[in-house]
Amino acid sequence: MRTIDWVTDASGHGGDAGWIELIDQTALPGELRVLRIATVAELVAAIRSLAVRGAPALGVAGAFGVALAARQFAADPAGLAAAVHAIETARPTAVNLASGARRAAALLPRGPHAVLREAYAVRDEEIASSEAMAVRGAELVSELCGPRPRLLTHCNTGGLCTVTIGTALGVVGELHRRGALAGVIASETRPLLQGARLTAWELARWGVEFRVAVDSAGPFLMARGEVDAVILGADRICANGDVVNKIGTFAHALGARRAGLPFLVVAPESTVDPGTPGGSAVEIEDRGADEVTALSDAVNPAFDVTPHDLVTAIVTDRRVIRLDRGEKP
Amino acid sequence: MRTIDWVTDASGHGGDAGWIELIDQTALPGELRVLRIATVAELVAAIRSLAVRGAPALGVAGAFGVALAARQFAADPAGLAAAVHAIETARPTAVNLASGARRAAALLPRGPHAVLREAYAVRDEEIASSEAMAVRGAELVSELCGPRPRLLTHCNTGGLCTVTIGTALGVVGELHRRGALAGVIASETRPLLQGARLTAWELARWGVEFRVAVDSAGPFLMARGEVDAVILGADRICANGDVVNKIGTFAHALGARRAGLPFLVVAPESTVDPGTPGGSAVEIEDRGADEVTALSDAVNPAFDVTPHDLVTAIVTDRRVIRLDRGEKP
Repeated sequence: MRTIDWVTDASGHGGDAGWIELIDQTALPGELRVLRIATVAELVAAIRSLAVRGAPALGVAGAFGVALAARQFAADPAGLAAAVHAIETARPTAVNLASGARRAAALLPRGPHAVLREAYAVRDEEIASSEAMAVRGAELVSELCGPRPRLLTHCNTGGLCTVTIGTALGVVGELHRRGALAGVIASETRPLLQGARLTAWELARWGVEFRVAVDSAGPFLMARGEVDAVILGADRICANGDVVNKIGTFAHALGARRAGLPFLVVAPESTVDPGTPGGSAVEIEDRGADEVTALSDAVNPAFDVTPHDLVTAIVTDRRVIRLDRGEKP
Repeated sequence: MRTIDWVTDASGHGGDAGWIELIDQTALPGELRVLRIATVAELVAAIRSLAVRGAPALGVAGAFGVALAARQFAADPAGLAAAVHAIETARPTAVNLASGARRAAALLPRGPHAVLREAYAVRDEEIASSEAMAVRGAELVSELCGPRPRLLTHCNTGGLCTVTIGTALGVVGELHRRGALAGVIASETRPLLQGARLTAWELARWGVEFRVAVDSAGPFLMARGEVDAVILGADRICANGDVVNKIGTFAHALGARRAGLPFLVVAPESTVDPGTPGGSAVEIEDRGADEVTALSDAVNPAFDVTPHDLVTAIVTDRRVIRLDRGEKP
């Protein structure tokens, strides 16, 4: 089952006349609903509402979105440019969305078919990337933590944030398959509860033993000796190793440092952004008060910056970057 | 308006034939509902459901509860002893509940009237204590942070957790009255949202400018320079200065340390427990999965331990303990 894909109808012979289908993550875990997305406006709305989310999945969404745009605005160059821009900027923090869209957009001069082929390539690379991260990450966790560690993870980094498997949660799944995992604490991840809703849903399907905890309990559970390592994803990895990820990542990194635990980031190479020198250069999306409380004003940064000195290692599909040994992305 | 008090009916001339009235904090902010508590069983249920909560208010509840017990079990010594024990142990972590109950229980040999008088004394001392903390705390904040600081607070430490005024939030209110406060970030305080529900309700009534944030955002907002000090309460202060308080306190302390901000604890002297050497000796209540998620298992510690080295100062009604200067409770 794929989180996002390009689907053609029964009569379409591999043609470009398809649409995007994606699992509506706002409906999980109550309902497994698949959205059919046939226009750029629908895709932008799905991205903004977090029906599709997670850096790698957003990269695929961006690429397929440009394929939609190429068809929808075939006779309207100004409309096409505006549509590509709307996709790239539907959310500001994740580098993958814009880079996936740009990669497909670079093929626009060769026509819609070439754009779709490039979008397929983005998708297939993300699938292969998940598989590579899972194996490489599992080996690193076993090396650092021994035979059956207890892991804490934050937000959702499973198949739902990629196309299949996942990033950090893909590592968790791989360790589980190897019998090399004692259990997981999944932080609930306020305000939208991607941990309690999505990670819990995926872990339960995989048969992994887990408990959910409120976000603020993580550092204390580490101090109390209930965690052997923290493993989570990234929306953007800066040139200096700073990690931009879901709000709460920084607090968990502080907890891991205090407890002397490995703090591991798993993200595809596409998340590494050499053009961003450090976390302070990243625009952090504020998603408004409504997600937090209906009763008062709120400050609602969707992401935070974990300074590189708090990160033990970054695992990508191509390498392990040991920040604790002075290596840089 | 008092959060908890002993009320006699119109015909009772200061008699012991009254009952406890308390604001049902589970109904706020939607409804300002007052519960009339006439039996020990009702009180224990109110404490367990968090209809009444906060260390100082629990101390008063414990004392008035023993006054109820003295009347209810006047002819049943075994029942009386069991009732006092049930009150003392209705929640395990706060020292005030047990100490308030024991203080009133020490008067049991002198009869119900003496018990009630002692409970009144516990209440009046908490009111005076709040007033003293507000003034002393406001002076310390102004000294450490300058004329108009931006404060972050966690959980609810206002009048709702005492009888009037509050502990840490009492300091916030005092600074506001002095025109010496720029604004407040109130963490929502999962799982029961005492910040988003109760602190927000109190701050709005007082006219203090504030924003709510998810708990895990606190450390990042500090790193981003939006906070000048963290100020919060304590359920128990250990002999070595370790602070046992609402889950999330430790994570905020780590954030404050990383950002170089003062981390201030405001709690009445009754919260200091010389009999507990350090935080590791405190039983931390786990309140079960239902508060966190209906979908899976959870680990739900209601409190955490903030080691004394992360605490700048503790403000009580009698003194300022500068832990950053090596002072001890």
